[in-house]
Amino acid sequence: MTAVTEVDTGKCQTGEYRKMLESLPVFMNVSDDAFIEIMDFIAEIDKLKTISRQTLILDGTRYENDAEHSWHISVMAPLLIRYLDGEAPDLLKTIKMALIHDMVEIFAGDTYCYDKAASADKKEREEAAAKRLFGILPDAQAEEFLNLWHEFEEMKTIESAYAAALDKLQPLIHNYLTDGKSWKLHGVYAGEVRVRISQLRSVSLKLWEFADSIISMSVSKGYLKAEPIDKKMHKN
Amino acid sequence: MTAVTEVDTGKCQTGEYRKMLESLPVFMNVSDDAFIEIMDFIAEIDKLKTISRQTLILDGTRYENDAEHSWHISVMAPLLIRYLDGEAPDLLKTIKMALIHDMVEIFAGDTYCYDKAASADKKEREEAAAKRLFGILPDAQAEEFLNLWHEFEEMKTIESAYAAALDKLQPLIHNYLTDGKSWKLHGVYAGEVRVRISQLRSVSLKLWEFADSIISMSVSKGYLKAEPIDKKMHKN
Repeated sequence: MTAVTEVDTGKCQTGEYRKMLESLPVFMNVSDDAFIEIMDFIAEIDKLKTISRQTLILDGTRYENDAEHSWHISVMAPLLIRYLDGEAPDLLKTIKMALIHDMVEIFAGDTYCYDKAASADKKEREEAAAKRLFGILPDAQAEEFLNLWHEFEEMKTIESAYAAALDKLQPLIHNYLTDGKSWKLHGVYAGEVRVRISQLRSVSLKLWEFADSIISMSVSKGYLKAEPIDKKMHKN
Repeated sequence: MTAVTEVDTGKCQTGEYRKMLESLPVFMNVSDDAFIEIMDFIAEIDKLKTISRQTLILDGTRYENDAEHSWHISVMAPLLIRYLDGEAPDLLKTIKMALIHDMVEIFAGDTYCYDKAASADKKEREEAAAKRLFGILPDAQAEEFLNLWHEFEEMKTIESAYAAALDKLQPLIHNYLTDGKSWKLHGVYAGEVRVRISQLRSVSLKLWEFADSIISMSVSKGYLKAEPIDKKMHKN
């Protein structure tokens, strides 16, 4: 909760890069707030490159960051669209969501999806962070990005459902192809991952079967833990 | 030239990740080449995250990589489209180009733009690399990506001109906001950068003026070298 009260949800006008940009000769005689705001935002989001995820890059040498992950799922969007079962999504809108969906972590931090304690106030922290970050932009663009992010979070449209599916599928592939190192480190159960990828089923039976197959193979290889014993006992 | 002869331009069927994907239960009884090819490609392009550029990320701690750069210019595309002078580009096409434009470096390596020796056989190396990389995909998608990459390289359409402008603008902003460290390291002249960004002028006077202003300020701050003395002498 601390993060919410600390966050300034008003228009952010004092970006660290803004001052450097304002000192450029091109801005000496003309005031062009919208252009400076956009450039300030472009500089601000560079921080996404420093936000580490829990997924290793495929050569196994280091964790990937949010910018790399956003790029990866954006490329996946046009490639996997043919496997969607329902109405075709607006691909541009899907990719825009994929590009910006993790930006709120610049001010809200990353929350590991299987960390229940940190997930508790995630929603509030991220809402404040979104308003602060996208608020750097001129109003019309701030509104577009904030709406796209809200749509992604609510997952009620085909575009957001598809973007969310890609967001879940990519780390699954990475965890499998890096011998489940990250899953093993956190002692993740197959059931937790199955719940997480269940949304894929409503978007694409093919992608869900693929994901489910990765989970089965990951259990048999020891990357993921099978169901906890006490859970099995409760069933009887 | 060595790289060209070493490169297998045929259909790449032996991806290192392909075998791991083929062993998944979902593929045990069904042959689905297209799906495996797409997944193999998605794994293969992860290598873009390991290709270092000559531009520092804005906190100055390390060089950025091609995946991060591709993400960054893809986000810039919808934000700066309002500053284009001519006909509005197809934004989806522009972003697709931005996402894939550097992928050929996975097999061809990065070539520093101010390194004249390495630039000599760049075109041939990259053409072979593009055919090899995009050739991992099913035919229709291989063709789409190869065409998009060719269009980007030829820079004759408004989409490719805009994507190329973003590709040049982003490192300029980065070099300026990281105190010109990379430029100083390579002893780059302002004139070289001016030639490099001259293409911006045909796309957007606003973006070109902004870029030109960054160059002027970079000379006055000592990030870029002014014109070589012998060049000035030749003028008289």
